[in-house]
Amino acid sequence: MGKKVVLAYSGGLDTSVAVTWLKEQGYEVVAVCLDVGEGKDLAFVKEKALKVGATESYMIDAKKEFAEDFVLPALQGHTLYEEKYPLVSALSRPLISKKLVEIAHETNADAVAHGCTGKGNDQVRFEVSIKALDPSLEVIAPVREWSWSREEEIEYAKEHNIPIPINLDSPYSIDQNLWGRSNECGILENPWAAPPEDAYDLTVALEDAPDTPDVIEIGFEHGVPVTLDGEKMQLDELILSLNDIAGKHGVGRIDHVENRLVGIKSREVYECPGAMTLLTAHKELEDITLVKELAHFKPVVGKKLTELIYEGLWFSPLTKALQAFLKETQQFVNGTVRVKLFKGHAIVEGRKSPNSLYDEKLATYTKEDAFNHESAVGFIELWGLPTKVHASVNKAAESAKQPEKVQS
Amino acid sequence: MGKKVVLAYSGGLDTSVAVTWLKEQGYEVVAVCLDVGEGKDLAFVKEKALKVGATESYMIDAKKEFAEDFVLPALQGHTLYEEKYPLVSALSRPLISKKLVEIAHETNADAVAHGCTGKGNDQVRFEVSIKALDPSLEVIAPVREWSWSREEEIEYAKEHNIPIPINLDSPYSIDQNLWGRSNECGILENPWAAPPEDAYDLTVALEDAPDTPDVIEIGFEHGVPVTLDGEKMQLDELILSLNDIAGKHGVGRIDHVENRLVGIKSREVYECPGAMTLLTAHKELEDITLVKELAHFKPVVGKKLTELIYEGLWFSPLTKALQAFLKETQQFVNGTVRVKLFKGHAIVEGRKSPNSLYDEKLATYTKEDAFNHESAVGFIELWGLPTKVHASVNKAAESAKQPEKVQS
Amino acid sequence: MGKKVVLAYSGGLDTSVAVTWLKEQGYEVVAVCLDVGEGKDLAFVKEKALKVGATESYMIDAKKEFAEDFVLPALQGHTLYEEKYPLVSALSRPLISKKLVEIAHETNADAVAHGCTGKGNDQVRFEVSIKALDPSLEVIAPVREWSWSREEEIEYAKEHNIPIPINLDSPYSIDQNLWGRSNECGILENPWAAPPEDAYDLTVALEDAPDTPDVIEIGFEHGVPVTLDGEKMQLDELILSLNDIAGKHGVGRIDHVENRLVGIKSREVYECPGAMTLLTAHKELEDITLVKELAHFKPVVGKKLTELIYEGLWFSPLTKALQAFLKETQQFVNGTVRVKLFKGHAIVEGRKSPNSLYDEKLATYTKEDAFNHESAVGFIELWGLPTKVHASVNKAAESAKQPEKVQS
Amino acid sequence: MGKKVVLAYSGGLDTSVAVTWLKEQGYEVVAVCLDVGEGKDLAFVKEKALKVGATESYMIDAKKEFAEDFVLPALQGHTLYEEKYPLVSALSRPLISKKLVEIAHETNADAVAHGCTGKGNDQVRFEVSIKALDPSLEVIAPVREWSWSREEEIEYAKEHNIPIPINLDSPYSIDQNLWGRSNECGILENPWAAPPEDAYDLTVALEDAPDTPDVIEIGFEHGVPVTLDGEKMQLDELILSLNDIAGKHGVGRIDHVENRLVGIKSREVYECPGAMTLLTAHKELEDITLVKELAHFKPVVGKKLTELIYEGLWFSPLTKALQAFLKETQQFVNGTVRVKLFKGHAIVEGRKSPNSLYDEKLATYTKEDAFNHESAVGFIELWGLPTKVHASVNKAAESAKQPEKVQS
Repeated sequence: MGKKVVLAYSGGLDTSVAVTWLKEQGYEVVAVCLDVGEGKDLAFVKEKALKVGATESYMIDAKKEFAEDFVLPALQGHTLYEEKYPLVSALSRPLISKKLVEIAHETNADAVAHGCTGKGNDQVRFEVSIKALDPSLEVIAPVREWSWSREEEIEYAKEHNIPIPINLDSPYSIDQNLWGRSNECGILENPWAAPPEDAYDLTVALEDAPDTPDVIEIGFEHGVPVTLDGEKMQLDELILSLNDIAGKHGVGRIDHVENRLVGIKSREVYECPGAMTLLTAHKELEDITLVKELAHFKPVVGKKLTELIYEGLWFSPLTKALQAFLKETQQFVNGTVRVKLFKGHAIVEGRKSPNSLYDEKLATYTKEDAFNHESAVGFIELWGLPTKVHASVNKAAESAKQPEKVQS
Repeated sequence: MGKKVVLAYSGGLDTSVAVTWLKEQGYEVVAVCLDVGEGKDLAFVKEKALKVGATESYMIDAKKEFAEDFVLPALQGHTLYEEKYPLVSALSRPLISKKLVEIAHETNADAVAHGCTGKGNDQVRFEVSIKALDPSLEVIAPVREWSWSREEEIEYAKEHNIPIPINLDSPYSIDQNLWGRSNECGILENPWAAPPEDAYDLTVALEDAPDTPDVIEIGFEHGVPVTLDGEKMQLDELILSLNDIAGKHGVGRIDHVENRLVGIKSREVYECPGAMTLLTAHKELEDITLVKELAHFKPVVGKKLTELIYEGLWFSPLTKALQAFLKETQQFVNGTVRVKLFKGHAIVEGRKSPNSLYDEKLATYTKEDAFNHESAVGFIELWGLPTKVHASVNKAAESAKQPEKVQS
Repeated sequence: MGKKVVLAYSGGLDTSVAVTWLKEQGYEVVAVCLDVGEGKDLAFVKEKALKVGATESYMIDAKKEFAEDFVLPALQGHTLYEEKYPLVSALSRPLISKKLVEIAHETNADAVAHGCTGKGNDQVRFEVSIKALDPSLEVIAPVREWSWSREEEIEYAKEHNIPIPINLDSPYSIDQNLWGRSNECGILENPWAAPPEDAYDLTVALEDAPDTPDVIEIGFEHGVPVTLDGEKMQLDELILSLNDIAGKHGVGRIDHVENRLVGIKSREVYECPGAMTLLTAHKELEDITLVKELAHFKPVVGKKLTELIYEGLWFSPLTKALQAFLKETQQFVNGTVRVKLFKGHAIVEGRKSPNSLYDEKLATYTKEDAFNHESAVGFIELWGLPTKVHASVNKAAESAKQPEKVQS
Repeated sequence: MGKKVVLAYSGGLDTSVAVTWLKEQGYEVVAVCLDVGEGKDLAFVKEKALKVGATESYMIDAKKEFAEDFVLPALQGHTLYEEKYPLVSALSRPLISKKLVEIAHETNADAVAHGCTGKGNDQVRFEVSIKALDPSLEVIAPVREWSWSREEEIEYAKEHNIPIPINLDSPYSIDQNLWGRSNECGILENPWAAPPEDAYDLTVALEDAPDTPDVIEIGFEHGVPVTLDGEKMQLDELILSLNDIAGKHGVGRIDHVENRLVGIKSREVYECPGAMTLLTAHKELEDITLVKELAHFKPVVGKKLTELIYEGLWFSPLTKALQAFLKETQQFVNGTVRVKLFKGHAIVEGRKSPNSLYDEKLATYTKEDAFNHESAVGFIELWGLPTKVHASVNKAAESAKQPEKVQS
């Protein structure tokens, strides 16, 4: 009897060809298509899988799980790879892997397949995640294995009656979910060239942004964004709403030459209107609610979490430990942030919190001042003591070495 | 015979009153006023010092030294305190301290005085710096010592014929140099309130920013910005030029609730049009010229440098060691960055460098592709091996603990 | 009516004098003495407090709480200040503070007092902890306030009939609990001098250590040492047992010139036989049970925890967040470690665990080898790719700059 | 015409077989043997290379260069991988690679070959280093390529008249240089088993260590050990002398289950008598000469340097930048350290320095005390202020949330 493979199916040319190719390798193909907020017609994709030869086809709405279990820790950890990229695709890969493994178990499949090439980060993320979840499953990467040119692939598709998408000559390679949209290739490969307007989809150009701002209020409970302008919303819906309203103002365009895990630099264009708005707002709420030493160490944890996610190690026990740290910190992150969306900016204009550590009585320069100015004298003396001793000793040591200078 | 004190003189009420107050304490007062790019009429200030009672008055143009010795390492280290504040005042304090000590040595003074209160960071920066440079000098902080209310100070000024500035009822406390302008107090003390427009001076409001961008090219040599649109410029002049052109587009407004060294949170508004433009451009040039492991570790050094500068430890030997690290890294940071200044943004649209590590042949998805896709298979296997072993072992350990589950 | 103060009472001269001194300041004194494993006769101390004038006297056995809530996280975090000092006193201060505040609440006291001087770390730890637990309590530091010389203090004691301890001329200042014993002062103040033998109490000199080792087995569950040679023990008892057996072999002497929080370097001698044995064993068990990326990041968390504890910030929310991280990691730390105690060493000779990630099949060089040697080729190619591109580009850039060299 | 390969030749079976194997692949073989302090008869090895078929054979004494350019930064950076392993082999690999590339250039060779297998770290170190120094050179790893069993290799050797070493049945795989000796395999593959005595060579067992200590004095200039008991010595000679004297006392045995770069855990036994003595002495000298903030940050740099060296990235520009940091710090590290070598310990009993920041006048508890005890009050108030505000605010926030508790 033949073997069975669960394929992450996107509806595009690569994975459509993969269905046929896998069948030729002797596999029965189960297609799985996930909705993580990419805004595609997934019912159509599910049908298409069957048309191109899959035995079964699953469509899973994973938006809520994606937002709550994957995006939320990234938001709370302020995970920006190389201080710029909010990990859009890197976050969805472990979730997709998890679903693929679940379906593989349900359908008694022997293998799992993904449509990545051999030079991106995503192949690493898929394969490490799948092996972490079930080391016994075989993992197949048809596109990497067949290593055809574009022309060869189209030839194969035509021979096997696989429908060719009409936008095939698009120079871009796109991935999208509710946390943002990534785009690489084509003209973008020259880092001196500005990205052309048609590289963008979720955001308007600054030139086209409206002349009046929108001012919104985001409410947080324990570090979770829970209301938008006072209205309770599920996290995935809140992010999608923010994508609309912030995208309308051109917020969240990112142009990044980044260091891939596989050893090359690549240039990517991202659009993350909701993500950048939430990251900004959350950071500012932390600025008033987290005590200094916590505020200063948390980015170390965030940076490590960023690396793990980018590098495909979501299912590492270190990820869980970092999340336990973050969870503990978020209990104080309650309150409301007022954000002005305007001309590509998400500007925090105000923040308030029942846990605010900003104390006007301590901060003020008016008569209300409750700060003990005398304390500063003792503080400075001890704070500066090591530097002072260092200066005294080493000047003395220096002079001792240079008697001729002292003499002259 | 009386003692002599060198006073950092700004021309404002506090330091003018301090001249008289110090004389009452038995000191002869030498006034020193530094030009670090604050855009004030310093000849006037120099004269005023003598009028209010100083024996001598120095005016020192320190813009070039400030830019090259203090601002440049901050630029190359991407020093943003709490990821937001480019250390404007924190950078000038050690330079001012250095000049005060130099003048103290030239004039055989016994003490040095500054005009800081007892709750800010600057008192720490002055006093630790001065003690580092000459532990034998006495340091006096008149404003902190007399601890008068505003009313008492004005009363004293009137009694002693010290001129009262006309803008005395300004609710703001301002400090400015070529790296930016800081503003605190007044309405800003409520973190829910947006800063009013009159809190800003170097930048236009987004609402008033021009509808056509300026596109500029900044040339870097060894991490130093050396040309603006092809024209060679001294660093201080280049920064001041950028302040103008980027300020005109509303670039560089920062609204920050920050953790002061002295234990309180305070809310500050900064304007740093030139600084933010240069920091952005420099980072993007590093993105194409620094190898991954260097790009990933350098921020650790930058963060530590930021802390040292913010916390008054410029003259620590650690500062020098961090700078030695940075200097070594900057040899590769050569090239040109094209920046679009528009609606409050400094957007890097292009970067090019003779040291660019971005290799189109490796990055491309076209036929030119020089990347060995096969290598990925081996890479992923070893990269994911620890995770796979961890998963296998701990699933086995888990099952071994729960025999009943295995049986059923 | 008078005010009431809760005093941390040790039975020594300082705190005995403090009872009288506090009464002279108008306070009713409640003495509290904690047993954290210092091996003193605490019933006697409790009585003495009443004799020297306390109204009430509490003796609290806090050994179990100290071990489980304070020492355990320090063990699991491998907290060694400046890589040497296992935080002996720094760990007990927050617990003592907690108990003082509890008694203050029970007895409706207005203030809390401790016997620290003005130049140590402990005053900071006590005062920050007490303020964290109840910001409304007054904190008094009699010894720091009266600032008497030794002679003046003795004079005062004699005048007030306070018993003078017979070992008053001891040159040492000792603090001890179950995690170790610290000693400072006297001859130790010269860092070129070796500590004299009478500075030590818990450990024998190497010269006197037995010629036959003891080999023990320590069993861990979730990172907690739970058995000694197979026998289940409560943590405080296990540590005290290890102090005996490891002390007998001279394990755990530490001679450290350390950087105090208050800005000076001081030289301390510590004895931590149980602590050093457990820290060594625990680390080695982690070496086989923690996955690489976790093993490499955990020390960053441990170092920050160390700093917080040393610097008196136990009750910071950051401490809790770091502990949440640690707790998550410890689930894998199960197994047994065999330790040879001999001539001042605690040598781990063997470690085994159901969660061991050491896989003989992967590690072996015999025929059993399950490692795929082919994978290394691809791994190395991608691992070294950035370095290779860097070398190619920058050699080319270098040559391009020096055409004369190329020509010749 | 045939191609030429430069082979790192050790005289052992693997590289002797490699000579013949490479010739069969059509290469002319140039053998290179380096003396980095491994204590072998290298003249014999040089001759043997020619006997087994090499065209040319080089023997290079690289001890001084190894000590000064590779070992010294490792000493100054306190590089201990996973806090245990002083990077013995990891340090020699880049030097050997450099020499191989130099000889390849001198002899116009096309390729470079090393004798590593496919599962160790050294293959990575060799190949990344060689590619960094000359990306155009081919790198061959014969042992990894032929992938024979031990029996097949011996069969091949016999057929080709390659001499079989007499100690071929040794269960160990050894590498040695002046910084230490590493040993893996055989019985060591069981981490529960203690290493047998015959696994060690440079150090005596504790049981056999002399009953009288040696006390030595090591003099440092700018962080470089320059004298031993007052006698000036070249660094390589000083280390070799220390290996003798400290090895005689059983100093420097390390038993380590470590995480290899290639994804597995392996168990290694190291002997580093000189290295561990110098690392201990150097750290203690820094303890009295480095100012606190430098002492606390330097380990971050050291840890990164350790990773780079372990992971084969010696020739990364990051390595140079980290070394620039270290060099700057070492100017203060002057003085003498007295070390007692006894029963496996290198105990620092005294340290003195013209740059010592340990100030007895500040540290003392006698009448000489120059520390201002009053300053502590102000220091503690500001140091603890964030914690206090946090406690006040969050207790209030907590109560506000739980009115029922407040009521009852």
